[in-house]
Amino acid sequence: MSAAPLYDRVALIGLGLIASSMAWAIRGAGLAREVVGTARSAETRATAQEIGLCDRVTETAAEAVVGADLVVLAAPVGAMGALAEEIAPHLAPGATVTDVGSVKRAVVDAVAPHIPAGVHFIPAHPLAGTEHSGPRAGFATLFENRWCLLVPQPETDPAATARLRALWAGMGAHVDEMDADHHDLVLAVTSHAPHLIAYTMVGVADDLRRVTDSEVIKYSAAGFRDFTRIAASDPTMWRDVFLTNKDATLEILGRFTEELFALQRAIRTGDGEMLHAYFTRTRAIRRGIIEAGQDTDAPDFGRVKTGS
Amino acid sequence: MSAAPLYDRVALIGLGLIASSMAWAIRGAGLAREVVGTARSAETRATAQEIGLCDRVTETAAEAVVGADLVVLAAPVGAMGALAEEIAPHLAPGATVTDVGSVKRAVVDAVAPHIPAGVHFIPAHPLAGTEHSGPRAGFATLFENRWCLLVPQPETDPAATARLRALWAGMGAHVDEMDADHHDLVLAVTSHAPHLIAYTMVGVADDLRRVTDSEVIKYSAAGFRDFTRIAASDPTMWRDVFLTNKDATLEILGRFTEELFALQRAIRTGDGEMLHAYFTRTRAIRRGIIEAGQDTDAPDFGRVKTGS
Repeated sequence: MSAAPLYDRVALIGLGLIASSMAWAIRGAGLAREVVGTARSAETRATAQEIGLCDRVTETAAEAVVGADLVVLAAPVGAMGALAEEIAPHLAPGATVTDVGSVKRAVVDAVAPHIPAGVHFIPAHPLAGTEHSGPRAGFATLFENRWCLLVPQPETDPAATARLRALWAGMGAHVDEMDADHHDLVLAVTSHAPHLIAYTMVGVADDLRRVTDSEVIKYSAAGFRDFTRIAASDPTMWRDVFLTNKDATLEILGRFTEELFALQRAIRTGDGEMLHAYFTRTRAIRRGIIEAGQDTDAPDFGRVKTGS
Repeated sequence: MSAAPLYDRVALIGLGLIASSMAWAIRGAGLAREVVGTARSAETRATAQEIGLCDRVTETAAEAVVGADLVVLAAPVGAMGALAEEIAPHLAPGATVTDVGSVKRAVVDAVAPHIPAGVHFIPAHPLAGTEHSGPRAGFATLFENRWCLLVPQPETDPAATARLRALWAGMGAHVDEMDADHHDLVLAVTSHAPHLIAYTMVGVADDLRRVTDSEVIKYSAAGFRDFTRIAASDPTMWRDVFLTNKDATLEILGRFTEELFALQRAIRTGDGEMLHAYFTRTRAIRRGIIEAGQDTDAPDFGRVKTGS
């Protein structure tokens, strides 16, 4: 609360996990004088009022952005273009528009054409999440020690980018910049393909006739449960991710299938040496992630017991 | 410590994560009068001595089993047959031999022929683990609230099975019984296929030219890191699992590939409805796992921060 606020008024359009965490983090650290929020669903707006998420909740996105010097588009990627068109006439000159979508090329293509001259557009993607969705899911520390990737456009004012970097740093995140296409490829590897694979494995387990759902659930600690968390994420958000990062995701899935077939062949032919060498190599990546502070090596992830 | 010990002398053959956790749990709860341990590697035996893991460490498996009323084979699945042959002449009449291998049909086939008349053979598989291996990895609470599957043979004395059940319950586990083939299919779904898939995805990430390892590591919190834990497990153990549970694993991987191709096609053709319906269905399984106490829904798995 000691420093002057970075922004006068932040408008959050959409109040799901990410935006509600931003509201708590921004207000908690005094990073803006006022946080205004809105959501398309009346129920979400009522919940935001009830839990005191924002300083003010408006009925429409157009109202929310009036007088805001930072506008955050926090809707599913597929809804961003229409949203940008809706708010464009109401944006204040000199304002910054950003987003928190998991795909960047499609957001740039859909949103940039609607951004008026004199307004800065800086796409962003905080790499943080939980399996929960909605306005009650947010918490102030979600971004601590996580990365936020900014995708400044060629014409973006460096001062506007520096201010947005400071906001994310103020919420505890590390900030990097990259271009939209590289972002989409990196995320296809680190997030989109793993999510699709996890969804698939959970779907297979649910679909087998000879193994019951209750067996799958009871015995999940043997590995399966680590797939179920990421396969519990918001269906609308993920549908849009795959539809809008189609090429990179399909490329990585193609590589994955090729590699999976090689391992399947090694199993079928009993090639223990190949399997052992492969499994030894993958350990190094895990060590790197722990050293980089992006996970803990506490037994069982430091999970707490939850009854029975 | 209040009740009488269930066994007089427990011999642990192999002192990795599972056996070292059993040593702490059995001794902590007073479930046996004496815990004797051995391992093939001199370094492992020296470590066990150093950390006071067992009451006594022997040079050979044959020595360890002398006078033991419970013998636990805790070696990689591929080594169990030779081990059983080695200890067979030294087993005490009336003793129980069990194991902790992740595959059961192959263990039954390899071990059962060596078990002398008058000795009980009850294969077992505790569904618990961490990404760490070796004698220092064990801790007494590893099995708490986890399942242990017993695979009694048709001729097994029910009293011997009941005693082994009591041992696992005493270490905090829930116990179920099933036959070897069903066990191997259930585990192919909940553990073996997910592990191979995780190994594959981590291998793909490590192998890409256009995305660096450091990017994969820095941005892993977006989903990928949940694959790396299970892909960091012991390579020898997992090589043996896939080689000895070949048929069930390949069957599940076949189903997985079929399903993955259907989802890839939905992405390619832009079938958002199919994707949304699929992703909605997989959430229910996750809820079941949390309700069954096999995971927590704490944000970010309740991970603790481990530095920057």
